[in-house]
Amino acid sequence: MDFSLFNFTIQFFYCLIFAPMKKAGILGGGQLGRMLLQEAANYPVETWVMENDASCPAAHLCHHFIKGDITNFDDVYNFGKNLDVLTIEIESVNEDALEKLESEGVSVFPKPATLRIIKNKILQKQFYQQQEIPTSDFIITQNAEDLQQHASFLPAVHKLATGGYDGRGVQIIKTTEDITKGFDAPAVLEKMVDIKKEIAVMIAVNKAGETAIYSPVDMVFDQHLNLLSYQMSPATLPEKLLWKAEAIALKVVKELKSPGIFAVELFTDFDDKVWVNETAPRVHNSGHHSIEACYSSQFDMLWRVLLDYPLGNTDHIMPAALVNILGAEGFTGPAIYEGLNEILAMDNVFVHLYGKTDTKPGRKMGHITILSNEKQELLHKANQIKHTLFVKSK
Amino acid sequence: MDFSLFNFTIQFFYCLIFAPMKKAGILGGGQLGRMLLQEAANYPVETWVMENDASCPAAHLCHHFIKGDITNFDDVYNFGKNLDVLTIEIESVNEDALEKLESEGVSVFPKPATLRIIKNKILQKQFYQQQEIPTSDFIITQNAEDLQQHASFLPAVHKLATGGYDGRGVQIIKTTEDITKGFDAPAVLEKMVDIKKEIAVMIAVNKAGETAIYSPVDMVFDQHLNLLSYQMSPATLPEKLLWKAEAIALKVVKELKSPGIFAVELFTDFDDKVWVNETAPRVHNSGHHSIEACYSSQFDMLWRVLLDYPLGNTDHIMPAALVNILGAEGFTGPAIYEGLNEILAMDNVFVHLYGKTDTKPGRKMGHITILSNEKQELLHKANQIKHTLFVKSK
Repeated sequence: MDFSLFNFTIQFFYCLIFAPMKKAGILGGGQLGRMLLQEAANYPVETWVMENDASCPAAHLCHHFIKGDITNFDDVYNFGKNLDVLTIEIESVNEDALEKLESEGVSVFPKPATLRIIKNKILQKQFYQQQEIPTSDFIITQNAEDLQQHASFLPAVHKLATGGYDGRGVQIIKTTEDITKGFDAPAVLEKMVDIKKEIAVMIAVNKAGETAIYSPVDMVFDQHLNLLSYQMSPATLPEKLLWKAEAIALKVVKELKSPGIFAVELFTDFDDKVWVNETAPRVHNSGHHSIEACYSSQFDMLWRVLLDYPLGNTDHIMPAALVNILGAEGFTGPAIYEGLNEILAMDNVFVHLYGKTDTKPGRKMGHITILSNEKQELLHKANQIKHTLFVKSK
Repeated sequence: MDFSLFNFTIQFFYCLIFAPMKKAGILGGGQLGRMLLQEAANYPVETWVMENDASCPAAHLCHHFIKGDITNFDDVYNFGKNLDVLTIEIESVNEDALEKLESEGVSVFPKPATLRIIKNKILQKQFYQQQEIPTSDFIITQNAEDLQQHASFLPAVHKLATGGYDGRGVQIIKTTEDITKGFDAPAVLEKMVDIKKEIAVMIAVNKAGETAIYSPVDMVFDQHLNLLSYQMSPATLPEKLLWKAEAIALKVVKELKSPGIFAVELFTDFDDKVWVNETAPRVHNSGHHSIEACYSSQFDMLWRVLLDYPLGNTDHIMPAALVNILGAEGFTGPAIYEGLNEILAMDNVFVHLYGKTDTKPGRKMGHITILSNEKQELLHKANQIKHTLFVKSK
């Protein structure tokens, strides 16, 4: 009798029947990890987080915090090798280690091959081109000298291939005079689109390839910091444009061929064309409203994907606006939340602070969601909040 | 120059201006602590939990877990002495230690004097009597012999003065034949009320004595386990009865003279009288729907009280039903959630599992909230869930 087969069979049925608590790891310990862990506590899952900073926003909310470098092969490999499933809350992770882990049977969502495409802006643009997904024209530049030769392509946006995040690694180059501001490293020079609106679409994909799509949201940006100023959801767009945006976002996500959750950022122009700007293979700032505004939040949804449960319901409970709480200009050091009491006294407002000890200009310190059936009230309160709450320091 | 005064002044203004993150402790690490900590992550607060079991539901969600006995004076005192504010998630804590901590300047909400009244069912009944709060007639019994002499008072409910929890320490005594089931320890013998409905009212009180009251909820009990079967909120009651229930609950909470959050459980009878059953000085099972159904959940609300922020908005976003997930009869050991996938596929349903490794009959393993504007749908889904989800073991 083949005992090893017998043992395997026993173990297989044991797993089927007892479904022991899954072990899930998150690479990165920022606010996205923090909110993922708030939601994880509703599921039977044991959680791990790796991050270099032991006082990061997610560190105290997991079962096991591992101090380590998410860009380092050994750190990532050792972190993941005994886990059932791994995800990321930031793209700048070591994808070689993730590929090895995947080959050894660990579920990695998003898949390393998908992450590789997305985290390099050159590969991401080429992917859109290959898939005939509408995106602005672009030129690949290897260095500053290269960039100099494309003056005729201006105005354009220069984006570093790797390492950019939250507005860093992006440079607007309007005329030849700005050309020295460009990057002396592999980058994409994207033709400037005459943007009418920016929207984002969150889509979840499960292991079976089924998708769940959230209503597109309107994003209004702070031009200065290149950060989300406020967001309204669902987006107010002509139905035809909504359908186009959803269809394009679905195409992007399906062709990325990976379980996970994805944020597809799009532009509309003045000819009612829809263009893909970029895609994030993870929970995303533009989806934070879903915590209170949707039946299944983006965080809840990602756990469903990671733990192989049915996809959640993306329907809105109520329309919402989202305001980021950013560190005020001119203040660096221990954070003080000026005006917080006034905000907490508002009656349809939800405050999320990320537990970051120190503030600096433009740092994401939290967000606020407003629920209301009246669009005017959402707009009014979003503006009121932006003029009431300031994150300062001494 | 008086340097100590100078230093004190400097420190005072430092605290005013920099408002360093408050240190908050929770005594007890069960599901109530777990849900409190999920919510704590939205506020600038550093959290401590004390509980004997390092694998309890709340242990991994705080900044600092302390293994200790919440009924032991030294353990509680040492836990609390360096904290700013303390709360409880179970009544069976050492209130002598809490009183000492309070006298040394630690904020303890609920106040130890209030906790002392509530945690002893004899003192609690006497409190209602003194405050002329309608409650069923009662007799105090010191032991089994004592009880024997009150056969004429039957049918009645015998409740242990201290140590009862979740249906334990309560015995229905209908006739003299049942009298041997009574407790041979200090207890209250309460005259049986001919109950039409059971309702609960959650009320928060801040340091200034201001109150925020949640809509009363209907509670339907499992007679066998004396545990909540399902709950509907807001309660469906004639307006006059609602007002009466709210007025009585407010009177109870105001006379308890303590900041915190309170659950007042009431009966209505067939003459439309409203009686107080008992009060809990903490977040409570009957308020779990508020996580999704109300603008400020009971957990959010308690943090507002503990951290001295404005009280939240108790309004409903949508009506809700709440179903407890209890360990099935006949199963003890590692938990298996039979039917969980079917529940997660329902489109207006929110699942909260408490992360308890082992199940046993009647153990609270989680809860499910249903949101709908249609009462019939709430009822239908609550019943569907009760016939779909079972917590079993091998």
